[in-house]
Amino acid sequence: MVVVGREALGLLSPFTLAQVGRLGRAGTRSDCSSACLTLSLALFNESTSPAHPPSPPRLLFISYKLLQLTAALYCFVKRTYVAKVGVALVGVGLVGKEVVRLLLSPSLRQVFDIVLLSNSKHAVLLESNVQLDADALLSLLPPSSSPLPPSSPQATYLPADPDHLVDLLAERSRATSQHIILVDCTSSELIASLYPRTISSSLSVVTPNKRAFSSSASLYDDVQSSLRRPDAGLCYYEATCGAGLPVLTTVRDLVATGDEVVKVEAVLSGTLSYLFNQYSTVEPPKERMRFSELVWDAWKNGHTEPHPADDLSGRDVARKLTILARLAPPSSANLPDGYASAETQSLVPPNLTDVTDPAAFVDGLAAHDEEFERLRREAEGEGKVLRYVGLLDRSTGTIKCGLEKFAHSHPFASLSGSYLSLAIYTRRYSSSPLVIQGPGYPLSVTAGAVVADTIRVAERYGAKVGL
Amino acid sequence: MVVVGREALGLLSPFTLAQVGRLGRAGTRSDCSSACLTLSLALFNESTSPAHPPSPPRLLFISYKLLQLTAALYCFVKRTYVAKVGVALVGVGLVGKEVVRLLLSPSLRQVFDIVLLSNSKHAVLLESNVQLDADALLSLLPPSSSPLPPSSPQATYLPADPDHLVDLLAERSRATSQHIILVDCTSSELIASLYPRTISSSLSVVTPNKRAFSSSASLYDDVQSSLRRPDAGLCYYEATCGAGLPVLTTVRDLVATGDEVVKVEAVLSGTLSYLFNQYSTVEPPKERMRFSELVWDAWKNGHTEPHPADDLSGRDVARKLTILARLAPPSSANLPDGYASAETQSLVPPNLTDVTDPAAFVDGLAAHDEEFERLRREAEGEGKVLRYVGLLDRSTGTIKCGLEKFAHSHPFASLSGSYLSLAIYTRRYSSSPLVIQGPGYPLSVTAGAVVADTIRVAERYGAKVGL
Repeated sequence: MVVVGREALGLLSPFTLAQVGRLGRAGTRSDCSSACLTLSLALFNESTSPAHPPSPPRLLFISYKLLQLTAALYCFVKRTYVAKVGVALVGVGLVGKEVVRLLLSPSLRQVFDIVLLSNSKHAVLLESNVQLDADALLSLLPPSSSPLPPSSPQATYLPADPDHLVDLLAERSRATSQHIILVDCTSSELIASLYPRTISSSLSVVTPNKRAFSSSASLYDDVQSSLRRPDAGLCYYEATCGAGLPVLTTVRDLVATGDEVVKVEAVLSGTLSYLFNQYSTVEPPKERMRFSELVWDAWKNGHTEPHPADDLSGRDVARKLTILARLAPPSSANLPDGYASAETQSLVPPNLTDVTDPAAFVDGLAAHDEEFERLRREAEGEGKVLRYVGLLDRSTGTIKCGLEKFAHSHPFASLSGSYLSLAIYTRRYSSSPLVIQGPGYPLSVTAGAVVADTIRVAERYGAKVGL
Repeated sequence: MVVVGREALGLLSPFTLAQVGRLGRAGTRSDCSSACLTLSLALFNESTSPAHPPSPPRLLFISYKLLQLTAALYCFVKRTYVAKVGVALVGVGLVGKEVVRLLLSPSLRQVFDIVLLSNSKHAVLLESNVQLDADALLSLLPPSSSPLPPSSPQATYLPADPDHLVDLLAERSRATSQHIILVDCTSSELIASLYPRTISSSLSVVTPNKRAFSSSASLYDDVQSSLRRPDAGLCYYEATCGAGLPVLTTVRDLVATGDEVVKVEAVLSGTLSYLFNQYSTVEPPKERMRFSELVWDAWKNGHTEPHPADDLSGRDVARKLTILARLAPPSSANLPDGYASAETQSLVPPNLTDVTDPAAFVDGLAAHDEEFERLRREAEGEGKVLRYVGLLDRSTGTIKCGLEKFAHSHPFASLSGSYLSLAIYTRRYSSSPLVIQGPGYPLSVTAGAVVADTIRVAERYGAKVGL
């Protein structure tokens, strides 16, 4: 089409072209429309000068010529002027806020437009091209506990309503001719269940929310089939597996280029990595802490989920392993209930499973220190250390998460801090794996991965970001 | 535009839409053109029924309506029908051949069309949609030593002519309305010097050839400015730095999302990694080989470049480090002569720099075993091992390559085989680096990275590959 475009543009007078170019580059949508109109009229006048009123057969010819010329115009304006991509951000917690800050950095605010912010109670729909910095923009959304303020010309306030969210965004996208990405920074199953409809409505999804990719096969399959529709949006979710580490992008590239994942060994939980890297070490530490003390410290210092049982249950690791396993066919059929179908060892003592108060839970752990100590000593006796890992082995059909013993020479033995580490064996990386590792903690790395995915979508919709 | 499209499509009769849809999906370019023509005529007939011959003012209205409708049609057909992306492959060596094989795999041959194959002497220009498997296609290109066969309807033979390559491809792209990617699998400086013109001609470049990104700043800057043109093609070169490892993609994502590279420590040469991982080890080996013996073995077994001095000079490491340094602003100004501006320790003894015969070179190395042995013992005395690394440190402005000593606890000390390893420190990954490592050898990983880049370009031109 670009070629037709170039040839057709050759037919136009330089004056008309310059005029359109100027209008296109001026950069607002109405400039763009008026550029279209101007060129269309100019073309039409060139094709049908008043001296030669067209006869009907000639009209058909003009119609075809106009078709070519308009396609040319479309390509020309599209190259010169690419509309900003809209971002609707649901879940304005720590990661969400950082995503807004990154998207409104000087280089990215040329590319993105925040069109909606929403927490669990309220939503604010923003006019395009609102010129506010990140903090001012974030302050437009009241906390869920506050009442909804009255709308202004820039900001329309609505109660948050997941049922209508997709329709609202699809309508906005239609009205403004702008592609919109739903950036879901919640961990809500409800929002995740909206992805298939979102994608089918020609909107894209970017998210660190693991639910849609690690829960039931039916939701996952719905997302996949929505992506296969000809007018589908896109869906990226790098930050669901390994914080900011380039895990899914890498596995996806390998699989897309004909490689096959054979085996994955992975330390996937920053919190469990942090705990066991201190608890079970190659060199004996000066002072040995009890397991419950370590959990208590980690919890106090915010290195665990609000309720540490959420880390110790291994569910988070199972979810990440499920996401990986599904990316690497042909195993999706093995996980009908998602992470719940993966064999997962919970470190939550049976008598504490129902303790909802985190402080009471951590207290209760002390009674189980001996069990953990026995496991640690057993590993030590074999010259090994304990690590909580996810394992995927296609040859044996294994998909499991749990405590494993590793020899001191194994790379997992020398991990420190909250390091995540993945060893990916494929047909190409057969005897020596591809290894990706890095800290799983700072929120900025997760937010960075979300924004990198958002850029990926924008690029596939024609934006140029960096080079 | 899609929205205008949707609204405008609502004006059409379902019959016309179905007809266009069918034609679009049928999937050849002439079907696509005839779909455009059919719809254009149908629209025109709907707008100007013979009973109401249009008067001139009405024509203007029709013109505007046609503009809208044609834009709609354009979007609709573009969504339904995406032309295959053309690949012109220059340099049909081991990596090039594997790239052809991967591109013609069942899932990718829906997306790509090989339009040209070329070695240093001959080129063969192929008709679109030639239905051949990879080996049959590759056999169409005669070896450089053979004469050029006569052309056939499917294959036009030409002498390889870099001067006209870009024009040839640009013309082909214009004639077939197909985006074309120049995949350069040579290591030619001449082909690299064509990238700016290629990109400016709306063609894309994908390559494992390091020259354009590691040589003079002027060539690099020319590539960058060509990429900034509004009608520019794209340029990806992941495989230039770290074989199949996701290095540049990762650094690019970090930088694009506002992170800053602070420091990089890297084992970047598979060959030098292989040599020193055997020569200088944490546990003393049973039998210690002399350095020249190790080089001889590696050379004999094809683990070095044809002339091992090319590995030992450190140039390859310096080139890769330069590529990395330039991706992470603001350092490009520091390397006006590219890799030649980086401080690089050569392991080629001065008396052997001019020995062009590889066997004589390897023989001559034996006289220098003592020097290497002294370095090894010195490191051993400090409880360290020797590794040849690239170092980038923004705080001190260091960009250097050479032999360094590493403590046994450093991750580089436990490397084995031909492992590459990069530790990337950024503002986000400040105290603990992001680490990427894996073997640098098998050609399949380099070819895989080239094909992953090719897919990236195709996706940005509208293709959907995998999901």
